[in-house]
Amino acid sequence: MEFIDGKWKKKESPWEELTGDRLIDREAVVEGAVHSIRKMGEVAFLILRRREGLFQTVYENGQVEMPLSELKEAMTVRVRGLLCKEERAPHKRELRIRGIEILSSPAEPLPLAIDKWKLDTSLEAKLNYRPIALRNVKERAKFKIEEALVRAFRDFLYSQGFAEIHTPKIGARGAEGGANVFKLSYFHKPAVLAQSPQFYKQMMVGVFDRVFETGPVFRAEKHNTKRHLNEYTSLDFEMGYIDGFEEIMAMETGYLRYAMELLKNDYEQELSILQVQLPDVSRIPAVRFDQAKKLAAEKYGRSIRNPYDLEPEEEALIGRYFKEEYNADFVFITHYPSKKRPFYAMDDPEDKSCTLSFDLLFRGLEVTTGGQRIHDYHMLMEKIAARGMSGEGMEQYLDTFKHGMPPHGGLGIGMERLAMQLLGEENVREVCLFPRDLNHLEP
Amino acid sequence: MEFIDGKWKKKESPWEELTGDRLIDREAVVEGAVHSIRKMGEVAFLILRRREGLFQTVYENGQVEMPLSELKEAMTVRVRGLLCKEERAPHKRELRIRGIEILSSPAEPLPLAIDKWKLDTSLEAKLNYRPIALRNVKERAKFKIEEALVRAFRDFLYSQGFAEIHTPKIGARGAEGGANVFKLSYFHKPAVLAQSPQFYKQMMVGVFDRVFETGPVFRAEKHNTKRHLNEYTSLDFEMGYIDGFEEIMAMETGYLRYAMELLKNDYEQELSILQVQLPDVSRIPAVRFDQAKKLAAEKYGRSIRNPYDLEPEEEALIGRYFKEEYNADFVFITHYPSKKRPFYAMDDPEDKSCTLSFDLLFRGLEVTTGGQRIHDYHMLMEKIAARGMSGEGMEQYLDTFKHGMPPHGGLGIGMERLAMQLLGEENVREVCLFPRDLNHLEP
Repeated sequence: MEFIDGKWKKKESPWEELTGDRLIDREAVVEGAVHSIRKMGEVAFLILRRREGLFQTVYENGQVEMPLSELKEAMTVRVRGLLCKEERAPHKRELRIRGIEILSSPAEPLPLAIDKWKLDTSLEAKLNYRPIALRNVKERAKFKIEEALVRAFRDFLYSQGFAEIHTPKIGARGAEGGANVFKLSYFHKPAVLAQSPQFYKQMMVGVFDRVFETGPVFRAEKHNTKRHLNEYTSLDFEMGYIDGFEEIMAMETGYLRYAMELLKNDYEQELSILQVQLPDVSRIPAVRFDQAKKLAAEKYGRSIRNPYDLEPEEEALIGRYFKEEYNADFVFITHYPSKKRPFYAMDDPEDKSCTLSFDLLFRGLEVTTGGQRIHDYHMLMEKIAARGMSGEGMEQYLDTFKHGMPPHGGLGIGMERLAMQLLGEENVREVCLFPRDLNHLEP
Repeated sequence: MEFIDGKWKKKESPWEELTGDRLIDREAVVEGAVHSIRKMGEVAFLILRRREGLFQTVYENGQVEMPLSELKEAMTVRVRGLLCKEERAPHKRELRIRGIEILSSPAEPLPLAIDKWKLDTSLEAKLNYRPIALRNVKERAKFKIEEALVRAFRDFLYSQGFAEIHTPKIGARGAEGGANVFKLSYFHKPAVLAQSPQFYKQMMVGVFDRVFETGPVFRAEKHNTKRHLNEYTSLDFEMGYIDGFEEIMAMETGYLRYAMELLKNDYEQELSILQVQLPDVSRIPAVRFDQAKKLAAEKYGRSIRNPYDLEPEEEALIGRYFKEEYNADFVFITHYPSKKRPFYAMDDPEDKSCTLSFDLLFRGLEVTTGGQRIHDYHMLMEKIAARGMSGEGMEQYLDTFKHGMPPHGGLGIGMERLAMQLLGEENVREVCLFPRDLNHLEP
């Protein structure tokens, strides 16, 4: 009988030792993928790619049994050798090779020059060769930044007493109406994919007071723009016992502060690879919807065409306005018109034509929608009736309100959009591992 | 212009102060849902339910302006009063009410007696009234335990250098063949819901070396058992540069050790509410598939009917065997027959009829499937051909291997099954907020 105790002695030297001082001028072992081979006469540099970064190893003629000609890019290898200081190498270290073990060998040469610092190819080519293109060090760094954004969301909310939930993605009906949902057959019953966890997270406020979920959402929108995906990762929270919808914005600001700290402290290497400047999130301006429209229209001489909605160009101008006037990268736009918000949005008691809701713009792009929800059963039923809706298919959601709910609200953040703006990308597909849009269903 | 700085001054007293000593005999404010009202002559106990637990407040005739008759269960309230020591109350505290503000009021009485310690009703009734049933303190505690299991998975893997990924749930074809997948139309193209992130996580090993994902998976299986769900949360990881498939089992054991520590340290209250005894995971026995079958058959006199698979009853007997013989709650079953594992499983070079793979049984139920995968392109193509498969629809997956992959492997853990066994539940639906099965598509 064998027992597994959770410990494992790796053959390779730990990264901290490879980049530390203890093993200098001693033998060490490195594993990695051959990222590039540069021949320089008597020696050749074999740059290995590992999850921690690139690592330089040196092949010196006469020191290694295996001929250099047997080595190829995209092999994975285990290399044994002498660890030496070398100021010009990454991490100021190199390994002078004494032995090489080939772990795997590619069948064909790489279709892209992934060892270039910037992958010099079109987005379309990057998406067609996605699993290969992402091996480029700059490409993959984007997704570590995204990891930090999601990780910070969870860790901050745990610290604020939120419970994590997992809600179903297959349901009997869409949370926000029948349009733009993907339909499927669920054991011969009509079903849809969730556009958001909205109804579920509200119902769970009655159970846990504060809940969050990080997961996929599905939108069957026929948009083909640089900022839309048909499947994306949504960072959702919902909180009860709020004193006002401003408390939700305060919670989001707290998250953003936490996320920037985490990035600064734990993702320094990726920030440096991508040359990202973190925005100041110590305070975020909040301005009413109608006022924001007016400010941008006046300063940039653009007439207001639609008083009920923000056009993408208008969002960009509002972003520019707050950058120029307040040096702010983020701005909360509050009090959206009621007719453009879903039925469950809480109207402003002082002006029923607008809601106690907000969007967050980041460098001129909407990255969050949130607000206070109606918690009173009768008020909810009146609003449903006033909109000519029936409540059919929402029975369990509505019943929850019959049996008491605290004042509450929440928000949804588009993970990819937040990352896109932080990284200054032009297209949201750049920060989605495997985008789903009108043209992409594979890989 | 208003600015949001992430700070918010709540009207209520923080929980630490309510349960600490500083506010004793002073005024405090508590918010919560009225969980139960117990009238005792001159006084009445109003038990409030908050995310942190239950809190006792006391209504004394003559001390509060609002008549007791106006208060109802399932209201949400903000209560002001005198915080006093009271040994018999939860947290040894009570608040003697001086003022009550009603935040919301239910429209109808509750359909279930959620204030009972154990919700005394059928699973079917609990599922029909799911958002209400979960308000029961014991019911909701199960999901905090589940939170801990997922949280520990991520935190442990971050510490081991894994990158978190988000892979698409809509795809052109199922990862493990065409059966048992939910089909949908994706802008008039045939599409399926992901049965697992298998192909994606393998492709991403070529990028990040080590990756994990926690997310929904979808199985269109027509099972109607106590241990199957058609949508569940899968905890997946995949790691490159492994020295052998035993390293994957070591990583899982490391995770389980970490999870039990997190539960012990941060989820003490929920463990106590549910009276859970944490299993010993300091070392987990590992036994070969054929040997495990034989041991259970011999000890319990059950003949082996199917030499290639474990029947549920057989799993239960193997679990019983290792409990009785080694006092072990977990057991790894290794070297599953090749014909019962998917094409990408690595065959044992010493006996091609079995694979370098494993399942983990927890108290006699499979909670994990894992193993080493084929990383060599030619070997993969040979195995596909030998199975009479075409590789059609898997081009991008297969191309990834053309361009070099390290030796690797990984696993998938069924979150709900792990929680079910830890909590000693009879039915996996007990630990799924909104189960999806043959009969449940709502709520």
